[in-house]
Amino acid sequence: MRYLTAGESHGPGLTTIIEGVPAHLSLSTSDINNELQRRQGGYGRGRRMKIEKDLVEITSGVRHGLTTGAPIALSVTNDDFKHWTKVMGIDALHPEDERSVRNKTLTRPRPGHADLNGAVKYNHRDMRNVLERSSARETTMRVAAGSVAKKLLKSLGITVGVHVLNIGGVKANANYRDVHDLIERAEASDVRCVDETASEKMKEAIDEAKKNGDSIGGVVQVVVEGMPIGVGSHVHYDHKLDGKLAGAVMSINAFKGVEVGIGFEAANLPGSQVHDEITWDANKGFYRKSNRLGGFEGGMTNGMPLKINGVMKPIATLYKPLESVEIESKETVSASIERSDSCAVPAAAVVCENVIAFEVANAIVHMFGHDRFDRIQEAVERHRTEAREF
Amino acid sequence: MRYLTAGESHGPGLTTIIEGVPAHLSLSTSDINNELQRRQGGYGRGRRMKIEKDLVEITSGVRHGLTTGAPIALSVTNDDFKHWTKVMGIDALHPEDERSVRNKTLTRPRPGHADLNGAVKYNHRDMRNVLERSSARETTMRVAAGSVAKKLLKSLGITVGVHVLNIGGVKANANYRDVHDLIERAEASDVRCVDETASEKMKEAIDEAKKNGDSIGGVVQVVVEGMPIGVGSHVHYDHKLDGKLAGAVMSINAFKGVEVGIGFEAANLPGSQVHDEITWDANKGFYRKSNRLGGFEGGMTNGMPLKINGVMKPIATLYKPLESVEIESKETVSASIERSDSCAVPAAAVVCENVIAFEVANAIVHMFGHDRFDRIQEAVERHRTEAREF
Amino acid sequence: MRYLTAGESHGPGLTTIIEGVPAHLSLSTSDINNELQRRQGGYGRGRRMKIEKDLVEITSGVRHGLTTGAPIALSVTNDDFKHWTKVMGIDALHPEDERSVRNKTLTRPRPGHADLNGAVKYNHRDMRNVLERSSARETTMRVAAGSVAKKLLKSLGITVGVHVLNIGGVKANANYRDVHDLIERAEASDVRCVDETASEKMKEAIDEAKKNGDSIGGVVQVVVEGMPIGVGSHVHYDHKLDGKLAGAVMSINAFKGVEVGIGFEAANLPGSQVHDEITWDANKGFYRKSNRLGGFEGGMTNGMPLKINGVMKPIATLYKPLESVEIESKETVSASIERSDSCAVPAAAVVCENVIAFEVANAIVHMFGHDRFDRIQEAVERHRTEAREF
Amino acid sequence: MRYLTAGESHGPGLTTIIEGVPAHLSLSTSDINNELQRRQGGYGRGRRMKIEKDLVEITSGVRHGLTTGAPIALSVTNDDFKHWTKVMGIDALHPEDERSVRNKTLTRPRPGHADLNGAVKYNHRDMRNVLERSSARETTMRVAAGSVAKKLLKSLGITVGVHVLNIGGVKANANYRDVHDLIERAEASDVRCVDETASEKMKEAIDEAKKNGDSIGGVVQVVVEGMPIGVGSHVHYDHKLDGKLAGAVMSINAFKGVEVGIGFEAANLPGSQVHDEITWDANKGFYRKSNRLGGFEGGMTNGMPLKINGVMKPIATLYKPLESVEIESKETVSASIERSDSCAVPAAAVVCENVIAFEVANAIVHMFGHDRFDRIQEAVERHRTEAREF
Repeated sequence: MRYLTAGESHGPGLTTIIEGVPAHLSLSTSDINNELQRRQGGYGRGRRMKIEKDLVEITSGVRHGLTTGAPIALSVTNDDFKHWTKVMGIDALHPEDERSVRNKTLTRPRPGHADLNGAVKYNHRDMRNVLERSSARETTMRVAAGSVAKKLLKSLGITVGVHVLNIGGVKANANYRDVHDLIERAEASDVRCVDETASEKMKEAIDEAKKNGDSIGGVVQVVVEGMPIGVGSHVHYDHKLDGKLAGAVMSINAFKGVEVGIGFEAANLPGSQVHDEITWDANKGFYRKSNRLGGFEGGMTNGMPLKINGVMKPIATLYKPLESVEIESKETVSASIERSDSCAVPAAAVVCENVIAFEVANAIVHMFGHDRFDRIQEAVERHRTEAREF
Repeated sequence: MRYLTAGESHGPGLTTIIEGVPAHLSLSTSDINNELQRRQGGYGRGRRMKIEKDLVEITSGVRHGLTTGAPIALSVTNDDFKHWTKVMGIDALHPEDERSVRNKTLTRPRPGHADLNGAVKYNHRDMRNVLERSSARETTMRVAAGSVAKKLLKSLGITVGVHVLNIGGVKANANYRDVHDLIERAEASDVRCVDETASEKMKEAIDEAKKNGDSIGGVVQVVVEGMPIGVGSHVHYDHKLDGKLAGAVMSINAFKGVEVGIGFEAANLPGSQVHDEITWDANKGFYRKSNRLGGFEGGMTNGMPLKINGVMKPIATLYKPLESVEIESKETVSASIERSDSCAVPAAAVVCENVIAFEVANAIVHMFGHDRFDRIQEAVERHRTEAREF
Repeated sequence: MRYLTAGESHGPGLTTIIEGVPAHLSLSTSDINNELQRRQGGYGRGRRMKIEKDLVEITSGVRHGLTTGAPIALSVTNDDFKHWTKVMGIDALHPEDERSVRNKTLTRPRPGHADLNGAVKYNHRDMRNVLERSSARETTMRVAAGSVAKKLLKSLGITVGVHVLNIGGVKANANYRDVHDLIERAEASDVRCVDETASEKMKEAIDEAKKNGDSIGGVVQVVVEGMPIGVGSHVHYDHKLDGKLAGAVMSINAFKGVEVGIGFEAANLPGSQVHDEITWDANKGFYRKSNRLGGFEGGMTNGMPLKINGVMKPIATLYKPLESVEIESKETVSASIERSDSCAVPAAAVVCENVIAFEVANAIVHMFGHDRFDRIQEAVERHRTEAREF
Repeated sequence: MRYLTAGESHGPGLTTIIEGVPAHLSLSTSDINNELQRRQGGYGRGRRMKIEKDLVEITSGVRHGLTTGAPIALSVTNDDFKHWTKVMGIDALHPEDERSVRNKTLTRPRPGHADLNGAVKYNHRDMRNVLERSSARETTMRVAAGSVAKKLLKSLGITVGVHVLNIGGVKANANYRDVHDLIERAEASDVRCVDETASEKMKEAIDEAKKNGDSIGGVVQVVVEGMPIGVGSHVHYDHKLDGKLAGAVMSINAFKGVEVGIGFEAANLPGSQVHDEITWDANKGFYRKSNRLGGFEGGMTNGMPLKINGVMKPIATLYKPLESVEIESKETVSASIERSDSCAVPAAAVVCENVIAFEVANAIVHMFGHDRFDRIQEAVERHRTEAREF
């Protein structure tokens, strides 16, 4: 499976094409809209989220509720575009519209954004040409693509969930029984956190940041339960599943780090306290006594739940703006302010979850055959049985 | 540029083919051997490193000391193979050799290794078929490929260095003037650490781990100075340079996390203390007052030094072995012991540096044209001038 | 550059996303619509072409008439979909609609189409699930993608044209001065043929086929003038430009062969009459006295016009249908008839031209840098000068 | 599966790495050497073929006669390199060796070769830097990679053969019962032709060309029997198997055209005489009454034998050389002469066969799963049964 995304933040809309989805998978717009809606919620979101009510349109690859094997095109209209038809117009600009467009020209690059780097790279003197694509609005389509993958995983008995471990330094006590418990409790929280006490403190931290015209980031954890053993591969570096996931997570807007299992803590512990001892019983086959490695060994799944953490930096657009330089005059100025949130971690958690779902599903499809969902399902079941009896 | 690697730990040897290296780059075997030698050193390495003295052979793509544009094949012979000709023989096994091979059959999977997962995936009942490829011996060729990339970067005035921030919980005070100072001091340390006091404590920690039959891991930091602005891109998720680097680092054996700039610490700080304010002067053009984002914004370089941290878990083969299960009898046993080190962080630092060098050089080649090194050099210089005058 | 296409013949519409188009290329909907319109014309097209008046919508990647470097999403609505909302509905089928859908169920596979093979592969018992995607309607988006590439080529002084060499055995006498003359005369012909006498005979052949309920195919030739020397590469098999073009042409619906230059005729001539002797003059630099190799040597352009021929088989849907087997009853039947043309060669010529334009432009972008059209333009000009002075 | 090749014609040797070969496939050096030997034979080969006796070395990915799933590195030493150590030396040239190297400098580009285009592209003034890589010597490794694929196909009951249809205008009467008969008779012929009368005339044509200092080309046909239905796909243009094969064939040195089934002849016939009617019987399931489309419909296999023709132009190096221009003096000269053959069609047939075998095997592996040969075998068998019962 592969997908391309397209679309600008204030352009006509967003599009993705997903190629390689197996045939005969049950899929509906509501499967996708549910994920889009999750992405739009969360304590700390600003006004933009009230404007956009993202609803997907499927225009190919699905017939009568089932995938056909053909590429799936998904689109989401930007309702806000009606106010931006001149500024973001596709056609060459009429001279009389130049003034209204000039008001939206971005020449004061925002620290922490792509603005200045993209401008230098592509030689854009109106950095709106960068901003519009580098905006996190793009993650809408990554969620849309991921939602198709989540449906595939769910249909294979694999469950993906996400919760928030840290917002602005407030850390959660992350106890949960299993991924289902995690999902239920995280989704019930305004900040997608299973720890109710921490949730309250996180909301306070968000309020505080907002009051200060500042922003805060956080850490999210994606959990995947039900994975067969041996997904990914040790044979070549670019088949390693943890590598693929790390690349995918770091490519999400504002993510600055990724770890699996205990991650960076592994630097501080001896090997005897890091590796997960192997055990076996007749019903389950081989399994591990612990899961400090987060379900990965040798670039492959080991049957334990996958645990992947990603860190999101605070949103870069501050209402109390940072210092910048106007690119024409070279004068020191305050950075531009685009409408923004004070904390987007609960939403970014959904993005991270879906981005990981896509890569995980892709690795499964790669391992168990490509064309037909029914055969993948059988192959996964058989592999589970053989692994249990190995 | 792209490369494939091949080779087993105790097989005849290791090979890589690197395709897409521009023509007219000066390259010699010593450029590569220097990096291979750095990889083989470091306090805490075991006996294997004394056995192998890796020397590369270039068999194509280079003529009279210059690349020609053709694929470059590199190979390193495993000197140890002479003792393994039967166990690791390519040809079908003669019946009389079966007993000697059986002694080397691996049926007690080592926690933390690919052994069991790879065995289940590929249906290998002799897990040596997994071990031999999943071994960190493979990183020899990733270093070899990276060393070609390092030569390209160096010829463009881009310097890559690495140092160790943490071994087994002993943290360095990582002060250095610039990447050249970093390299000089790190390379002078047995543990590749710029902090002399910490270096001593790290060695003590390694000795302690060794004495306990245990192992320790650590954190390495790669620094890249001299990067042009705008390498990578915000336009599509899979062009983001930080994403590519994260994927590459996480695909190194035993790496469990990767971060850029302040990384996970970004969760604990407000946006005003995370983003790097933009400033300008007539000589340098735009630059940042700080470098908390590690040189990346919007998936692109911003002209500041790149800083990428990776965490290596402790080596999984312990002389005081962990509990495992013999796969035929299903009895609880101690895991197999293959010859191993108590700490490989100083060597893994070299791997991480070279893996990053490859991805960074690839992004440069991608951005500035493919075929001829002289034209890439000119294009980079011109881009630097234009960026300064932007 | 890369692109994915999506969309079914009678579904809501067609979509493509083109990623990697350089920034600052002038592009408008009319650039694309012109090509779409060319594809819809031609003597011998049936009723479908009167129903669809394809008009593209650009929804991203272009602002104020210039590309921004971001992915370009293009869509074309199927006007006919309003009559197919139930048959081709995305949502699960309401029981009351089952009968109307059943009328459109395809169970009599058409020889020469994907119907039966796709049905067996994907386990579709309604072969409409295959037909709708395997339809040549998909080529609309390949033309749309190609039209963006053609604009890029044109802006670099590279001209792409196409003409018809053979329809149903009627062969053209293909004399033309240069590609501009070729285009002018071919586009003036109902069958896209520069030979007026042959054009008339081709139309007669089409009429005859139509009268017989039969269909005919033909040979088209794409010509590309103005190519720099050395596009493509000999260094690795998958960089060879003629290889890429052959793959692209053969992947067009109904194409069964491809050749460059004199192609298959090269089997019948001695080497002294096949290879193009090299000559030089001070103004032009090196060039060839003839162009029997069609502008390719060693997988690279040699500066002579590219000449690529493709053969299209007769359309597979015949009004006098071929024998087939109903897949449920296994009874011998006549194949299904979907609305169809008796000859689509003049239209397929446009598809072939645009498909080649994309691959050629991609090779240029690959060779001369990716991000900015202005820099590509300079690099091409400089390369032309250096080649002249080599 | 994917592979990279490396190596120059007179360098130390040739290398390929094949990644993605499933585990548990029986493979030996003789499987590969047999194909290498076939490539080195054939009436019309020159002295070079007597010098090189290509023997492959497998250095990874195979253990005790079975693939392990790890990358397979193959190498072939150039025995002739011992005479070229200075001219083709990897290290920087010693001043005292400059003269001996200068004798081998190529400055008179050969029409029909990559020489001049590659020189302009990569700015090589010694065109030996182009020649050495663009030489057909590279096809040794494409055959090596293909031989692994052929073994995989054979183990699945799929047989690949090749025969010569035309040499220098002498056309064969290509009657054969099935692919096994074809192989037996073609391999018994000096020119790989099943028609004994034509074989004799082809040899005469080769002798004549040689006497004239000229060269001749020809047409080869690859036949693949036993393919499951539905390999390849109609859903996206770059999954079409005929497209992949066309790209692969055209990327072979000196190939100028490729067609499937009746190919270009399809332009001259009505649809009713081109398409293959569908029929069915209880034992075989669906099949076709004829095979004019060469086993492909909709970019997929239809269960009939695959038939792919490729045309090889006459070898470009003529002993009665063509006119060229010395690149330094710009004087008109005779082109350089490198040791060469007067006809290489029988050998090129082997290259074409193996190149196609790789792509076909890759499509099978892609469709039926990647990791284990035993599971692929089962999946193929099951698919065959289901197709028969469809």
